[in-house]
Amino acid sequence: MSIQKLFEASKAASKVVGLANTNLKNAALEAMAQQLEANVEQIIAQNLLDLENGQRNGLAIGLQDRLRLDQKRILGLASAIREIIALPDPVGDSVAGMTLDNGLKLQQVRVPFGVVGVIYEARPNVTVDIAALAVKSGNAAILRGGSAAENSNRILVSLLQAGLESVGLPVAAVQTVDEFGRAGAVEMMQARGFIDVLIPRGSASLIQTVVTESKVPVIETGDGVVHMFIDQSADLQKALPMVVNSKVQRPSVCNSLETLLVHEDLAEEFLPKVAAALRENSVVIHGCEKTAEIIDCVQATDEDWAKEYLALEISIRVVANVDQALEHIARYSTKHTESIVTENLANAERFLQEVDAAVVMVNSSTRFTDGGEFGFGAEVGISTQKLHARGPMGLKELTSTKWLVRGNGQVRS
Amino acid sequence: MSIQKLFEASKAASKVVGLANTNLKNAALEAMAQQLEANVEQIIAQNLLDLENGQRNGLAIGLQDRLRLDQKRILGLASAIREIIALPDPVGDSVAGMTLDNGLKLQQVRVPFGVVGVIYEARPNVTVDIAALAVKSGNAAILRGGSAAENSNRILVSLLQAGLESVGLPVAAVQTVDEFGRAGAVEMMQARGFIDVLIPRGSASLIQTVVTESKVPVIETGDGVVHMFIDQSADLQKALPMVVNSKVQRPSVCNSLETLLVHEDLAEEFLPKVAAALRENSVVIHGCEKTAEIIDCVQATDEDWAKEYLALEISIRVVANVDQALEHIARYSTKHTESIVTENLANAERFLQEVDAAVVMVNSSTRFTDGGEFGFGAEVGISTQKLHARGPMGLKELTSTKWLVRGNGQVRS
Repeated sequence: MSIQKLFEASKAASKVVGLANTNLKNAALEAMAQQLEANVEQIIAQNLLDLENGQRNGLAIGLQDRLRLDQKRILGLASAIREIIALPDPVGDSVAGMTLDNGLKLQQVRVPFGVVGVIYEARPNVTVDIAALAVKSGNAAILRGGSAAENSNRILVSLLQAGLESVGLPVAAVQTVDEFGRAGAVEMMQARGFIDVLIPRGSASLIQTVVTESKVPVIETGDGVVHMFIDQSADLQKALPMVVNSKVQRPSVCNSLETLLVHEDLAEEFLPKVAAALRENSVVIHGCEKTAEIIDCVQATDEDWAKEYLALEISIRVVANVDQALEHIARYSTKHTESIVTENLANAERFLQEVDAAVVMVNSSTRFTDGGEFGFGAEVGISTQKLHARGPMGLKELTSTKWLVRGNGQVRS
Repeated sequence: MSIQKLFEASKAASKVVGLANTNLKNAALEAMAQQLEANVEQIIAQNLLDLENGQRNGLAIGLQDRLRLDQKRILGLASAIREIIALPDPVGDSVAGMTLDNGLKLQQVRVPFGVVGVIYEARPNVTVDIAALAVKSGNAAILRGGSAAENSNRILVSLLQAGLESVGLPVAAVQTVDEFGRAGAVEMMQARGFIDVLIPRGSASLIQTVVTESKVPVIETGDGVVHMFIDQSADLQKALPMVVNSKVQRPSVCNSLETLLVHEDLAEEFLPKVAAALRENSVVIHGCEKTAEIIDCVQATDEDWAKEYLALEISIRVVANVDQALEHIARYSTKHTESIVTENLANAERFLQEVDAAVVMVNSSTRFTDGGEFGFGAEVGISTQKLHARGPMGLKELTSTKWLVRGNGQVRS
């Protein structure tokens, strides 16, 4: 099949799934979940091929972690699908309504986008999450999953399609362009009239390429240079586990902590503790000059402040006050997630108001910026732009709206 | 001032206006309205310069109409500003909220975009509408109004800035790049990090250029190949004034009717009536073969079905049934506004559900697709894409959201 035919098949499928009722879509999702559960070993076998190729090609440890599917993760994907089944169907939801003076009745209702394109790298779980969210929200999905996960994605898409087919929905509602290699991604960026929204997930360079090259509307995601600021009034017993959790619980993902800012009044007390806890977890510390006076660390360079390590490394800077922390964040933040640890109400509220990011936190691990944690079942990605959606994107973020106007012959004077 | 400095000034101003409270923003808007009212003659004088240039350069009649500012239109702009004052401030509005099982409190609130860029052509009223909507929604606006309206826009922007200054808000909250000519528009499309969203308004070619060239997130607007379908069961006494109003009330704008579809069972009765009424208003008719058998008309070409005349011309096609009407619309619609005239409930509901457009109407003139008519005071434009906003864009559509997360030390397990 040519890629043009594939796009046309997606568009045709989107009309069918867009008009499907909630029960039919949920039946398709349940069938998808069962297909995954019934084929755990086959999926693992295909995933192993990808992992072996990755090791052979020197794939970074963090990316190997993202690529890996074990039984627990596969069953987790099935249970994410069931969470999505349990969520309300956004399609048809009434967003606004009013009757004008002239008697025209206006109703703004949620409708599916149509065809959603997603370009991502070496994360086969994304294949399942996007497909499930797309089908529930009445969309067709076109996926480009990256050559490193080619075998995993091939089997996952065929299982998801088997689920669609078993309830009579078109298999073209979930398609992959992986067979077209890099050309597939390029064609997706050019597919005006076929793809209604394109979402890149993955490395900063992938996202930048899609954002600047695409002729199709794009939602920019990911890329998290995430900060945590330990304010003067912070409760250090709470702060320590939040820092460790934010950094080490899953360092390869975008909501993990990259830069720790510490108020100078706490530095002497807190830095040795945090350094010990991080080293226990094999974290390499890049510190500013003041940090280096207190703990052993690599000297942080200017580039380090803008770096998304996605690994067991962290930048630490001692700051004079909340103003300096806000300035540092305004300069280096990628507007993903920013957290303050404080017991001071005024500073907490100021941080919440002034920090320009998708998710702004007080006394919370940054790892909670996640569609699953937010109760969305899964996520399409985490938008770091301001258009359409900001932060974790779930079902609602995969819909548009349309205005229905009902009259009885009104004309404009 | 270099354009880079201008962008930086906008960004700095956006922080101030973004934190301004509702009363201060409303005071600025009231001052803007008063500046317009106090300077009607000066505005008209500058507008006359543009109109004379336009006539000398052969500007189309439709565009001359869009360019013209008379006393009534200027006072209308001031009263649109007062309508915007009366609307609720979207900033800080709570969109969603929930408490997670772990005790984290999530709140999704509306925040301004930051800096909104708008590129448009020869419509000085847009200058005022956008500035007022931007300020009320806490944004800074960067405007590129087109050389044909240069003199009008210069005086309008200076009056709007005087309004801002009189209440102590930064004048850079409303700026124009007209002095930079075409380069200004190109720089806006490149201004990642300075412009949060870019909205092109105007001709199809302008919009296409911005959509395909911009590195900044874009909302696609305008370009309305608008259809009205007269169904078999239509009440022809209602239908005739709706057709005439949709076509002739202001033919130069995007919500005016371009193609009329008539059910074949009504053609012999309705077409002579509609032809007479349209000719009375000097409308040139391009008809399909069947139309030409009933009334005098120009033979419609294939290109005519895709044409946005923006003038006193219309395409008319006789169709066999609602299916053929839906097919025609699916093929030629620019997804702006589509209307059915019918007394048949099933056909009305089917049309509302199946037509993929920003605004879908039953028994209504297409001229009502308009931010002012919808009660938004004015409009930033009419989005014909599905991302972020669809249809007339008012205050809410100039905002993004951010998630506030309040915890007491939660870590992810």
